[in-house]
Amino acid sequence: MKITYLTLFPQLMECYFSDSILARALAKNLFSIEFVDFRKFSKDKHKKVDKQKVGGGAGMLLEPEPIASALKACTDKNSWVIFLTPAAKPFKQKDAKRLAKKEHIVFVCGRYEGFDERLIEIYADEVLSLGDFVLTGGELAALAMSDAIVRNIPGVLGNEESLQEESFEKELLEAPAFTKPNLFQGKHIVLEFLKGNHSKISALKYDMAVMRTRYYRPDKRIEDEK
Amino acid sequence: MKITYLTLFPQLMECYFSDSILARALAKNLFSIEFVDFRKFSKDKHKKVDKQKVGGGAGMLLEPEPIASALKACTDKNSWVIFLTPAAKPFKQKDAKRLAKKEHIVFVCGRYEGFDERLIEIYADEVLSLGDFVLTGGELAALAMSDAIVRNIPGVLGNEESLQEESFEKELLEAPAFTKPNLFQGKHIVLEFLKGNHSKISALKYDMAVMRTRYYRPDKRIEDEK
Repeated sequence: MKITYLTLFPQLMECYFSDSILARALAKNLFSIEFVDFRKFSKDKHKKVDKQKVGGGAGMLLEPEPIASALKACTDKNSWVIFLTPAAKPFKQKDAKRLAKKEHIVFVCGRYEGFDERLIEIYADEVLSLGDFVLTGGELAALAMSDAIVRNIPGVLGNEESLQEESFEKELLEAPAFTKPNLFQGKHIVLEFLKGNHSKISALKYDMAVMRTRYYRPDKRIEDEK
Repeated sequence: MKITYLTLFPQLMECYFSDSILARALAKNLFSIEFVDFRKFSKDKHKKVDKQKVGGGAGMLLEPEPIASALKACTDKNSWVIFLTPAAKPFKQKDAKRLAKKEHIVFVCGRYEGFDERLIEIYADEVLSLGDFVLTGGELAALAMSDAIVRNIPGVLGNEESLQEESFEKELLEAPAFTKPNLFQGKHIVLEFLKGNHSKISALKYDMAVMRTRYYRPDKRIEDEK
């Protein structure tokens, strides 16, 4: 998989790929990255890429031409173009798994007050939001989605089992977990975990996962699978 | 405001503060940042910070001692300690506004399979998730929340009006916006926007925001405010 980032600020993003899991995955050619600064595609003599909104409203908007030219230069028929804006569908774990199968993903990172809507109408295969909050730009949304996507590419995580047990599998948040020491600052590990009866531990984990999900995420419907 | 990041990978985060709005806010002392690598607090001779889960399960867990020692070293009574994990309440715009008033925020970034639960019980003022997806670590969650929080500190954005019109104010996604040229690749700006009748434009924007919210976010309750 190749991921292209259309951004005015590649220097804010590059270090995220310098170490840890994503750096190792890059080194193993499990994916590759490319940064395209669409300011370079501006025909303005001062390389401006933003203009005032038509019809009034605070702040500047990304004008259509430079992003359109950048997209033409870096996409082909196998590219999947994702515009990042808070006014969109929120990215979820199922999107991470779905997008992990794409050949080429292009993230278009907004800045200022966002995109001229016609860019999205013409070029977007998909429009995604990182969540119900507003960022100064799309760069962190692109990085977070990339991270969530790439770890679902086979070979990226050392231990593929990790993917089966984590939060959002079966719509449940993950159960609490414990490691040594058994006693830490007066708090014991849940006793059942120490006894080694795996079917009891497994049932208890399921119950704790359900309780945690009900507590933090009353909006989620939980199917009883026991 | 000061933000402290407890992380095993400060080098993945630092460049995000090197340019643009957050770099300018740092230069103006509107906030400050500190990175604390909790590996330095490990008493293990190989500086290990992870151990196997008690009771079975794939992957390694962050053990309690190094993070506890790091927190003791970098917090005081004015610190607000936030643990980042997908098994928590999702961060929203109202959290960004609320946390923008804190004096000292400490983000504890998970790695591997996450934290020994007792760390959260003892040290967390709050537990937050970036959204319904799993990341390789808490670093991007900490950066995204920081970005969303800091832009709500007075003086950080050039134009404070921007904060009033954006998505998630009044629970609505922002309406589509347009800039010049009036005609781009066969697509016109919505005609009403060009006529300059601001009450009509405003009513139309509201209707478009409601339609977009209904389309992308059928889960949101929309109060009619017209």
